[in-house]
Amino acid sequence: MNAKLLHLPKHGTYLSENSAMSLALEAASQGVRGANPLVGAVICDAEGRFLTAGWHRGAGTAHAEADALANARDRGIDVTGAHMFVTLEPCNHTGRTGPCSHAIADAGIASVTFSEADRTSQASGGAQYLASRGVNVESGLLSTAAQKLNRRWFDTTSSARPWVSAKIASTLDGYIAAADGSSQWITGAEARLDGHSIRARVDAIVVGTQTFFDDQPRLTARDAQGNNLPHQPLRVVMGERKLDDKTADGQPENFLHIATRNPRVVLAELQRRGVKHLLIEGGPTIISAFLDADAVDEIFWYQAPKILGTGKSAIPDLGIETLAQVRRWELDDLGMTPALTRLGDDLRVHLAPGAH
Amino acid sequence: MNAKLLHLPKHGTYLSENSAMSLALEAASQGVRGANPLVGAVICDAEGRFLTAGWHRGAGTAHAEADALANARDRGIDVTGAHMFVTLEPCNHTGRTGPCSHAIADAGIASVTFSEADRTSQASGGAQYLASRGVNVESGLLSTAAQKLNRRWFDTTSSARPWVSAKIASTLDGYIAAADGSSQWITGAEARLDGHSIRARVDAIVVGTQTFFDDQPRLTARDAQGNNLPHQPLRVVMGERKLDDKTADGQPENFLHIATRNPRVVLAELQRRGVKHLLIEGGPTIISAFLDADAVDEIFWYQAPKILGTGKSAIPDLGIETLAQVRRWELDDLGMTPALTRLGDDLRVHLAPGAH
Repeated sequence: MNAKLLHLPKHGTYLSENSAMSLALEAASQGVRGANPLVGAVICDAEGRFLTAGWHRGAGTAHAEADALANARDRGIDVTGAHMFVTLEPCNHTGRTGPCSHAIADAGIASVTFSEADRTSQASGGAQYLASRGVNVESGLLSTAAQKLNRRWFDTTSSARPWVSAKIASTLDGYIAAADGSSQWITGAEARLDGHSIRARVDAIVVGTQTFFDDQPRLTARDAQGNNLPHQPLRVVMGERKLDDKTADGQPENFLHIATRNPRVVLAELQRRGVKHLLIEGGPTIISAFLDADAVDEIFWYQAPKILGTGKSAIPDLGIETLAQVRRWELDDLGMTPALTRLGDDLRVHLAPGAH
Repeated sequence: MNAKLLHLPKHGTYLSENSAMSLALEAASQGVRGANPLVGAVICDAEGRFLTAGWHRGAGTAHAEADALANARDRGIDVTGAHMFVTLEPCNHTGRTGPCSHAIADAGIASVTFSEADRTSQASGGAQYLASRGVNVESGLLSTAAQKLNRRWFDTTSSARPWVSAKIASTLDGYIAAADGSSQWITGAEARLDGHSIRARVDAIVVGTQTFFDDQPRLTARDAQGNNLPHQPLRVVMGERKLDDKTADGQPENFLHIATRNPRVVLAELQRRGVKHLLIEGGPTIISAFLDADAVDEIFWYQAPKILGTGKSAIPDLGIETLAQVRRWELDDLGMTPALTRLGDDLRVHLAPGAH
């Protein structure tokens, strides 16, 4: 299951309201999980004929509504009097982009149907603003599906912490290093490059002091040639062991040591510094601490088709004694981030926390 | 990547000899690995226009050549004077089906191009027979790819042992049971049903005495309702521990205890009994013994998206100390047996032995 591109209906195809919102949800799942929720938007004319669609591609890019309106403008499609279906209430605030509520009303959209209200205090108020501009507003269509799509994101915003992704690279039998500690490289070039592309879209990376000293990671986002990518995350080491002025790759910039083993303290400190998306890269003790705090929102688990039989486990002993206590995850299948992806000789499993 | 159906060209499409053989290879990979090799066949007319194709679906079903000829007959396509492209030399013996060499000549095929000679003493001689009937015979086209497709199968036939599949069902972190031994069920219903469908196409299943006493497996192939499927494999327990007249599921029929820990002894005994496809279901000691003997030809590794952190490992300590000694496997991607398959909540990885 490699990346699955969205197939849009032909211009002018009649869509029921349900079909239009289903399509908006499908468009939403073309995005990536992270600082922002997955949102999709579909615009139909007043008779229900499909005009265009849009979706949010992640922090710093256009919101779904703005993307759909831009697509209409680019194609010379008149949206005056049209009906927009959007999976989340249009925002009413100026962040990295302008408020969608204003853009929608300014474009002459006559009706907006959204699935799920925006409960973040910062962005809410969009429905109210649209109504004040004379736009007909409805909500709740396919809200269960919309809620499910961003369930974990709503949790992170309500607990005021960054979105947390974890990266694990192991053998098929779950080892991240051989018995003697050798680990370079378990996975191949394609899988490692994919890991760098995740680094390039997060605000911060954290490793524990053990990994910091053992692996001396540079914690930078690099391309296939090993050159730094334009966006570099904040490089964070957590743990009580003293670093003695050592920094990742010997570079003091963009580097932070948080002297605690407590993930909650790390998350609060990073939230305070404006980090909205954190990537945990290990080691096992750190991942386990975040798992115990229920503070891992997605896992990218890279597996090399190799068998070690013994070595350093990806996940340490969590005190689980019987199968009923197992930690449940779910295959998270999105259009551009499928649950199962082949990367060269290796595979990547994309996981969301399971129901507890 | 779920099952990938073969897309055949339209009737009458011109194919180069290379394209025709590539298509035959693609058709071959619609089959399943096991007692017989993967073989595909394509029939073009004398001008190189595509007529039909066929492939072998596993032991007991028509050979690829016979399947292609049957497809032509069913569609009323005249193959007189036509050119057949087949990935393996047509057989010349009467096994569960008649000799393909005779069927091809009888059908009026004028030319046969095959990729790879049949080196099994039993089935070879097809090329010679065809030539004796005035059929133009060529060989060696895309032979590297054809050889690679069945590399491991050629190994098993030359060492006169059954094809060996292994089944593993573990958590993401490689455990087949929790610390207290509880293991029912790590994977869900879809994955378990898939396991039964593999049991239903092998000649024998083997487990060790430890698994036999701990799990008391029935070792039967069952459907979703738990009813026995028509074909039942020979149920084998290996190991030196005495069974004291116990048999799987209390049924003495179709049951065999081989009192050895040596996989070579088990394989020789099963070969003698006509077993051409063996499925190893565990436990870890047994799988490891077969791995050590380089006698595992494919692995179906089911993974539940769950984390245990500790428990009974899928693979025991193999004495590997450093990463350079890792056992390499390869994702084995076939049309109907993809490398990565989602089965309900779980995933299945299909693996072939890697280059040593």
